[in-house]
Amino acid sequence: MSERQHVVVVGGGFAGLNVVRSLRKADVDITLLDRHNHHLFQPLLYQVATGGLSPANIAAPLRSVFRRQKNCEVQLAEVTGFDPDNRKVILKDGELAYDMLVVATGAEYNYFGRDRWKNYAPGLKSIEDALEIRRRILSAFENAERELNPIKRRQWLTFVIVGAGPTGTELAGTLAEIARHTLKSEFRHIDPSDARILLVDAGPAVLSSYPPKLSDRALADLEKRNIDVRTNQMVTEITPTSVTLKCNDDVEKIACHTIIWAAGVQGSPLGNALAEATDASTDRSGRLIVEPDLRVPKHPEIFVIGDLARVDSEDGQALPGLAPVAIQEGKYVASVIQSALKNEQDVSPFRYKDRGTMATIGRGSAIADIKGWKFTGFMAWMMWLVIHLIQIVQFQNRLLVLFQWAWNYITFNRSARLITGVAPNWETTPRVEAEQETDSVKSPVAENVSS
Amino acid sequence: MSERQHVVVVGGGFAGLNVVRSLRKADVDITLLDRHNHHLFQPLLYQVATGGLSPANIAAPLRSVFRRQKNCEVQLAEVTGFDPDNRKVILKDGELAYDMLVVATGAEYNYFGRDRWKNYAPGLKSIEDALEIRRRILSAFENAERELNPIKRRQWLTFVIVGAGPTGTELAGTLAEIARHTLKSEFRHIDPSDARILLVDAGPAVLSSYPPKLSDRALADLEKRNIDVRTNQMVTEITPTSVTLKCNDDVEKIACHTIIWAAGVQGSPLGNALAEATDASTDRSGRLIVEPDLRVPKHPEIFVIGDLARVDSEDGQALPGLAPVAIQEGKYVASVIQSALKNEQDVSPFRYKDRGTMATIGRGSAIADIKGWKFTGFMAWMMWLVIHLIQIVQFQNRLLVLFQWAWNYITFNRSARLITGVAPNWETTPRVEAEQETDSVKSPVAENVSS
Repeated sequence: MSERQHVVVVGGGFAGLNVVRSLRKADVDITLLDRHNHHLFQPLLYQVATGGLSPANIAAPLRSVFRRQKNCEVQLAEVTGFDPDNRKVILKDGELAYDMLVVATGAEYNYFGRDRWKNYAPGLKSIEDALEIRRRILSAFENAERELNPIKRRQWLTFVIVGAGPTGTELAGTLAEIARHTLKSEFRHIDPSDARILLVDAGPAVLSSYPPKLSDRALADLEKRNIDVRTNQMVTEITPTSVTLKCNDDVEKIACHTIIWAAGVQGSPLGNALAEATDASTDRSGRLIVEPDLRVPKHPEIFVIGDLARVDSEDGQALPGLAPVAIQEGKYVASVIQSALKNEQDVSPFRYKDRGTMATIGRGSAIADIKGWKFTGFMAWMMWLVIHLIQIVQFQNRLLVLFQWAWNYITFNRSARLITGVAPNWETTPRVEAEQETDSVKSPVAENVSS
Repeated sequence: MSERQHVVVVGGGFAGLNVVRSLRKADVDITLLDRHNHHLFQPLLYQVATGGLSPANIAAPLRSVFRRQKNCEVQLAEVTGFDPDNRKVILKDGELAYDMLVVATGAEYNYFGRDRWKNYAPGLKSIEDALEIRRRILSAFENAERELNPIKRRQWLTFVIVGAGPTGTELAGTLAEIARHTLKSEFRHIDPSDARILLVDAGPAVLSSYPPKLSDRALADLEKRNIDVRTNQMVTEITPTSVTLKCNDDVEKIACHTIIWAAGVQGSPLGNALAEATDASTDRSGRLIVEPDLRVPKHPEIFVIGDLARVDSEDGQALPGLAPVAIQEGKYVASVIQSALKNEQDVSPFRYKDRGTMATIGRGSAIADIKGWKFTGFMAWMMWLVIHLIQIVQFQNRLLVLFQWAWNYITFNRSARLITGVAPNWETTPRVEAEQETDSVKSPVAENVSS
């Protein structure tokens, strides 16, 4: 039996992946646990939700990633809790002992206690989420096409995106492109460009983490795409067929079917479980507050990294939930673990190197803030493209995605526009039934012209 | 209001697609009804089920296909029946009148009255089926990796494919490749090449519709891939964890988890509904027996084509359920409809032009029978590849698929190996739990070496 230390890493996102990778030459045994069999390139998940990319383009099987790393094994398993006293991870179907533990289970959408909203306004965190959102968006146009009642038709063509951060902005911009370009000439009874897209945020600006100049430019780009941007508006109620907004004392109820949640995030529930088990604290967003070396207080054998960790930068600001932060934290923790193996006590605290941030609004439009340099428009979008392509984990995925993007750009096409899975039962006034009454069944095209 | 005839086409498979396309210049209004929003290139569906291609690679949105055909509208609708007296199609949410009707709703798997088996042994007809089979295959290896009990582990690594026609043979061959090559070095506790793959058929040969010489070669190729081919064996029972086979008086129960049904097909249930409504007859496989001009007897305004139609060739043999048959029937019916519009009574009966058939066993291996010329091995496989690529509907899909195949061929990789969707609750003996008992948790890699 080996005397090697057993490092258990929970979560194969950017943070977990980089811990494992950076430990490839370390004298440890690593077990990577994940609920999914793939690493997900989350920054492009919105492209799957809008039919531009296939799930496999942005997901790499974890086993494939670590196939050659002999000190690592991958287990497809669901972690349900922690037993730090006995140094064990509790699984749905067993338990697993560790010498060192890295928890990187990420974040989920925060519905601020209104968990019922989750069914009506799904968030975008997993492949399954993306396919569900894709199904809802595409089905909405299909239902509008079959709907004769103009009020109900308008409702099908109304899309509300809650939260004007990077994900919400990307979704709104891409949805506008689909409605104005991709679906053009595909329908006979509706004009998809009539779609009404609302981007709602409780704060005063879109992409509010960016400097005002960039945020303003993003707003202008969104409005140029006919997106109805509603800043300073609170969502007070969501039903399957409406969103209620409040601005000062004004209340507006928007009839719609497709609602997407891209508002605040909170640490995954496992963060709370770990905090309770270790007497650690969490911040308001459910992120576990770690030491400067990313260890859990009083538990030098446990690290928390990625979106689940609350880490403050030198100026006291919480680091944002971004892939570069997670990647750097992962690499840092791998080095701390290697120091610990050598019994080196002196480790310098984690410092995030901000190489810049960027967000895209859609085809040919983005904003970038790189060490104070600000970029907008096509230039920023090209930078965004190149940087995201470089980052995609596997060589094949990179080329495939490049190919697919180039194609989409030239043709405005989105090839992954499949409706799969099961649809809920909506109440509609089907076009065909009403057509019987108006006796216009023989000429659906002519009927369209007259309507 | 237009006086144009309204042609309703039910089903956007090869048959329906080709009717609509061939009527693009006809003076008619066409409505294409389909339950799905996409045309599916079924001959490559097994590649999705085995993680080689993404669903979008082999599916084209119907609206996109007919975007420019102004005399056609597409409706995403579910047909539930027919009212031929009033010339109406009954939909789940309404009805639709027609002047001429083309029914091409295809076939589904025939469980010979044992519909319970469907849940345990899914067939491969839709994208959803393919994703479910992909999930089961990949999960089986994951569960085997976590299973300590060697008997149960063997059960997870046993795959039974029922039916040795083209689909069953392709699945068996590809599954063998995955086990021997793709997953190589990805697991730490199992050797995926230990997987046992059974290909079962009640008849005396694999690919029995081919000449004996080709069928024998296919058998040899399958056995070279370590596939356990069981001809002349009847499936008498299927449970979630076993398949029972009967050969003469011998009964064998095979413990397994992953069972795929690729045995007989039958006409879709709508065929029966139409037969009842029109007093037409169906054959033993539930296919509607049509006139030589593919019309339903006594209903010159209704055509049935594709896998749903029973059409006999000149020598009295039923035409097989193949894409080329469906395509030619579609084009033929479009010409008959155009003749009817001109009041031409004299139409020559449908004649299938057999340009040859081919089936693949896996990487570098196929059989082809082209007008009496017989091809096997790599040569046949290259022909198979080229012909299938040419046939794929959309330009983009073709290049993407070419790219992905080339990549797979060079690297033995399969990039679309995602486990998505919900797994059933299986009873397992999890590795991690048992590891606690043997106190080997710290060295999962070392433990593998000793096991």
